Amino acid sequence: MIKAAVVGATGYAGAELVRILAGHPNVDLAMITSRQYAGERFDAIYPALAGQVDLRCEAYDAKKACAAADVIFLALPHKLPMAFVPELIAQGKKVVDLSADFRFQDAAAYEAAYQPHSARELLPKSVYGLCEVYTDRIKAADLIGNPGCYPTSVLLPLVPLLKAGWLNPDSLIADSKSGVSGAGRSLSLTTHFCEVHDSFKAYKVAEHRHAPEMNAILGDAVGTPVHITFVPHLVPMSRGMQTTVYADLNEKVADDDIRSCLKAFYRERPFVRICPGDRPPDAAHVRGTNYCDIGFKVDLAANRLVLLSAIDNLVKGAAGQAVQNMNLMTGLDETAGLMQVPYPI
Amino acid sequence: MIKAAVVGATGYAGAELVRILAGHPNVDLAMITSRQYAGERFDAIYPALAGQVDLRCEAYDAKKACAAADVIFLALPHKLPMAFVPELIAQGKKVVDLSADFRFQDAAAYEAAYQPHSARELLPKSVYGLCEVYTDRIKAADLIGNPGCYPTSVLLPLVPLLKAGWLNPDSLIADSKSGVSGAGRSLSLTTHFCEVHDSFKAYKVAEHRHAPEMNAILGDAVGTPVHITFVPHLVPMSRGMQTTVYADLNEKVADDDIRSCLKAFYRERPFVRICPGDRPPDAAHVRGTNYCDIGFKVDLAANRLVLLSAIDNLVKGAAGQAVQNMNLMTGLDETAGLMQVPYPI
Amino acid sequence: MIKAAVVGATGYAGAELVRILAGHPNVDLAMITSRQYAGERFDAIYPALAGQVDLRCEAYDAKKACAAADVIFLALPHKLPMAFVPELIAQGKKVVDLSADFRFQDAAAYEAAYQPHSARELLPKSVYGLCEVYTDRIKAADLIGNPGCYPTSVLLPLVPLLKAGWLNPDSLIADSKSGVSGAGRSLSLTTHFCEVHDSFKAYKVAEHRHAPEMNAILGDAVGTPVHITFVPHLVPMSRGMQTTVYADLNEKVADDDIRSCLKAFYRERPFVRICPGDRPPDAAHVRGTNYCDIGFKVDLAANRLVLLSAIDNLVKGAAGQAVQNMNLMTGLDETAGLMQVPYPI
Amino acid sequence: MIKAAVVGATGYAGAELVRILAGHPNVDLAMITSRQYAGERFDAIYPALAGQVDLRCEAYDAKKACAAADVIFLALPHKLPMAFVPELIAQGKKVVDLSADFRFQDAAAYEAAYQPHSARELLPKSVYGLCEVYTDRIKAADLIGNPGCYPTSVLLPLVPLLKAGWLNPDSLIADSKSGVSGAGRSLSLTTHFCEVHDSFKAYKVAEHRHAPEMNAILGDAVGTPVHITFVPHLVPMSRGMQTTVYADLNEKVADDDIRSCLKAFYRERPFVRICPGDRPPDAAHVRGTNYCDIGFKVDLAANRLVLLSAIDNLVKGAAGQAVQNMNLMTGLDETAGLMQVPYPI
Repeated sequence: MIKAAVVGATGYAGAELVRILAGHPNVDLAMITSRQYAGERFDAIYPALAGQVDLRCEAYDAKKACAAADVIFLALPHKLPMAFVPELIAQGKKVVDLSADFRFQDAAAYEAAYQPHSARELLPKSVYGLCEVYTDRIKAADLIGNPGCYPTSVLLPLVPLLKAGWLNPDSLIADSKSGVSGAGRSLSLTTHFCEVHDSFKAYKVAEHRHAPEMNAILGDAVGTPVHITFVPHLVPMSRGMQTTVYADLNEKVADDDIRSCLKAFYRERPFVRICPGDRPPDAAHVRGTNYCDIGFKVDLAANRLVLLSAIDNLVKGAAGQAVQNMNLMTGLDETAGLMQVPYPI
Repeated sequence: MIKAAVVGATGYAGAELVRILAGHPNVDLAMITSRQYAGERFDAIYPALAGQVDLRCEAYDAKKACAAADVIFLALPHKLPMAFVPELIAQGKKVVDLSADFRFQDAAAYEAAYQPHSARELLPKSVYGLCEVYTDRIKAADLIGNPGCYPTSVLLPLVPLLKAGWLNPDSLIADSKSGVSGAGRSLSLTTHFCEVHDSFKAYKVAEHRHAPEMNAILGDAVGTPVHITFVPHLVPMSRGMQTTVYADLNEKVADDDIRSCLKAFYRERPFVRICPGDRPPDAAHVRGTNYCDIGFKVDLAANRLVLLSAIDNLVKGAAGQAVQNMNLMTGLDETAGLMQVPYPI
Repeated sequence: MIKAAVVGATGYAGAELVRILAGHPNVDLAMITSRQYAGERFDAIYPALAGQVDLRCEAYDAKKACAAADVIFLALPHKLPMAFVPELIAQGKKVVDLSADFRFQDAAAYEAAYQPHSARELLPKSVYGLCEVYTDRIKAADLIGNPGCYPTSVLLPLVPLLKAGWLNPDSLIADSKSGVSGAGRSLSLTTHFCEVHDSFKAYKVAEHRHAPEMNAILGDAVGTPVHITFVPHLVPMSRGMQTTVYADLNEKVADDDIRSCLKAFYRERPFVRICPGDRPPDAAHVRGTNYCDIGFKVDLAANRLVLLSAIDNLVKGAAGQAVQNMNLMTGLDETAGLMQVPYPI
Repeated sequence: MIKAAVVGATGYAGAELVRILAGHPNVDLAMITSRQYAGERFDAIYPALAGQVDLRCEAYDAKKACAAADVIFLALPHKLPMAFVPELIAQGKKVVDLSADFRFQDAAAYEAAYQPHSARELLPKSVYGLCEVYTDRIKAADLIGNPGCYPTSVLLPLVPLLKAGWLNPDSLIADSKSGVSGAGRSLSLTTHFCEVHDSFKAYKVAEHRHAPEMNAILGDAVGTPVHITFVPHLVPMSRGMQTTVYADLNEKVADDDIRSCLKAFYRERPFVRICPGDRPPDAAHVRGTNYCDIGFKVDLAANRLVLLSAIDNLVKGAAGQAVQNMNLMTGLDETAGLMQVPYPI
């Protein structure tokens, strides 16, 4: 059994980690921490889990965490992890960080979007945890920068086709739509029921911090710098994310070619499902799962490709992919703990 | 491994049975049937399950069902099951019927609420599958009339206290609120998104067919005929049910007494959770689970008890309880296949 | 033209007052105040009203308010109004207070539910603004305690039948369901989208502060003290309220008698609609309107009456009724400014 | 007073026409028709309007309609209007058709997307009723092809900037998101609450019939054929539409230039609101109104413009624009009947 700790267990991504790890057949969830709820039972904060999770939140203490766990998940706001991680790595722990702090190999790119980085020396060791793209590097890693939800939904459909050379990298546009849980559990008018319900709007138009993260990985795929136009929107649903990507085709490519390329790339990857042509991916169909559903359509008259993806922002977009990374890092089956049968509706 | 069949697998309760049975460690889901979708893959109808359920719907055929399965679940509109069940029982199968057809021991009570019963001879053999109340009879049964969702939510909080003699049986009122999936997948203006969203209303006020079902079991608990005033309401959510029961107290009873009584009655029952006094049951906390959460409050000035319960109408209110019944009937652990860790939100 | 001011214009009830008064044909909305947003344009806070309301929020100043307006609406948390109102009344203004501060004639009842009252001398002058019940007193009043949303939805169906003597006053139960806007615009986990969406629960079971307010008016109707069991619930919708009232009948009364009694009582009241027997009131049908829809059903076997009502908690439950009170107090047509045609869905 | 008739009054667009016309100060709503509900009261179908609309639905009869009304609104599925309109025009009536039948000047374009056109001779007389773009032609018209909801949301932000010559017409992409009422009141799994709620998906990707309609008007704006890539999505809300348009800039253009261009184009148009730069248009802010809110952002690194718009699909996207067209055709103030103050939430 792998002993695991979740640091920051009471935010939505942290709570989702608790859910998955509590049901993981190869994991002993040994410790959960929360600054805000230290000393409280987890099921007092998330009563759904009463009877299944019998843990109390503790205040974070690096020594205790290292004593308790082999794998440590950090589900904290960015900036905190770069302060915590060096000690954990020095103690020989495996770390999956769900913040942006270890997603960039290039400290300058991180610092342009966030703030000065205080653990730059670890960046070369860290691996971007997009499981289906960096599998081998993840297997060998001790430190994972777990991808953002938006980048996961944009990169999984795009990377195979960019690598095939069929897309004009200057033409990339991603129009993403996220459920409200993406904004976290903190209080703000933005997440007030009456302000979100029956509302639909874009936000941080072409200036969201997930765009540089996408650009880095897209650039890695094509070998030259890439700039994607990225516009996120807020959907009145709790979980789920749907992304529509637009890209000009370099040549005449048919729907069948696209399908073959994606199928080949993801042939052995259990969490990517390529949808039939007449059924675009639906956030409802991946709710609560670690799947990424992908669809597509060539707009022949424009010689433009439309790529579509759906994930659960809290699972494949956060906690699920984090556990998938742990599975890969520790030699477990990639799907361990992540295959509960989805709800039909 | 128990071989199971689901007859009527593409309605919401049927699909939920498929979900639970596909993930059940002791079950081989051998056959699913659907009149409307015979020949089609299940995951074409419920794409969420792609990659996990690799079955096609068949047209129902009694011989084939008997050859394929030991336990047969019927998730059909009432009236069909009473035509199908006699042959299945004659063939020595165990049957869990989710319709009303085998919920009544008294044919006259059934016929007053539904229609003439064509398999009256089986009623004495059938057991009302309210698992926490009729456990021993269920363990010995071959034919289960699986309770309705409303009765489950009303009876579980009420039965222990009625048996304790504390409640005036003439004073019982149940005000229930159900998510839209309770209306099924059939098309109707009632379930049109634009007619339900931002709507809240009662329906079938004091004339819903689940009331006679409650009355029969309540009467069984007190030993005399009981009439409950039952008013169901429709909530703009997909799944979930919350019921508020009102009952006059026969004597001065305190909150602590109520708690002790409920705790004692459900001491060994894993799917009933008694909520802390400051947190009433919430449909969100049982979503996707087989739990029934129960809360209560004595209104001292009125000497009246308020009982509160929450279930998932498709799980504890239908498919989950059906599988719990199968577990009891076949000697499995009561919780087998029903303990996936709930979503925190 | 009546000059009006709204004090506390940026909460939901205050904003709704701004909406109604801005479209009122006989009103000049002269001043709006907000502590939090003083100096800001109203349409920066509520962008829906851009192009229609060209006002800035001011800090509250009694002298300025008195100079600007004839009628002053207070949409503030309780406790503030009792500090502000004496000066306004002394200056000869008409005041409609939407808080609880002037809803009770009996200071002791107020103080038991809230806090010490610092303007007790005004209570005998104040009138409970339930327009259809206290019409004549409202017409003569200078100070209105505008009813709470729950009491409005409970009292309008109950009062006529209580006055008719048909109901047992010891048997009254009100099971209410409110949209989330009833919790106001303040930030709290209770109103976080992810905690409310797909949730349904009771709260403040049999201990909500609107119960004493109901008891006072119900007692006024029957002439003896009344205690109602009141349980509010939270519905995942933004606006709207539905209440189901249960009462034992003192004698055999038929549906037709109930209908006649309600029709007679509300014959000349434009905002009460008695629903046909086959269509219970629906929160969706009164959304955005000042209507109270009422339905009912006698449960013959129990000799119990089920009364049903639906209002918009922000309109008939707050701002709409406040304007209706102003109309009555100032001799305008009762419906002025309140009759915009409702949305069909 | 203008006498008006609504043919097809019980679909969502038709019902919205009834709402607006019933409250229009210059209109006498003389007749409403419905095949399905002929003989029934309108408020039995839409109970929200009880007490305000006292009309019964009739079966459509051209003679009666011509006798009763000066202006006839057709809110019918396409194909029916081209059969009805010739007689109405021959009788000298003004007609606003909400279907696609009279939106195309070019019969071939219509027939490629729909079916053979049986009233081609009327197409040259018909005017595309995009009020802010074809104002003068609308004022002189007898027959209006009222724009589709998606085209309205795409064209209003795009046309001014295309006319300014700043955008590359080969680069146009529109990513639209619509509430469920856009699918109409007909029954289908697509609009079943449980299938839509908590769902988000694209549909008819790059093959929706509103794209040719956009192409025709965009081509008219630039003087050469245009092909836009159009992808509609379904949002779990009842009303509302948000569109995000992407277009490559031909030259360096700053946010201020875009603002000036849009402001100038819509200077005297009361229903277009240009949003501040920090607040993208929100479907919630235009709900129930005839406004089109427009926002934008230049993605400098890509030299690409992001345009954002929000409308209510049933108002500016259907019934509201239809009435605006009537106002223009009959010489009324453009805003008559369309300026009720919006709800703050």
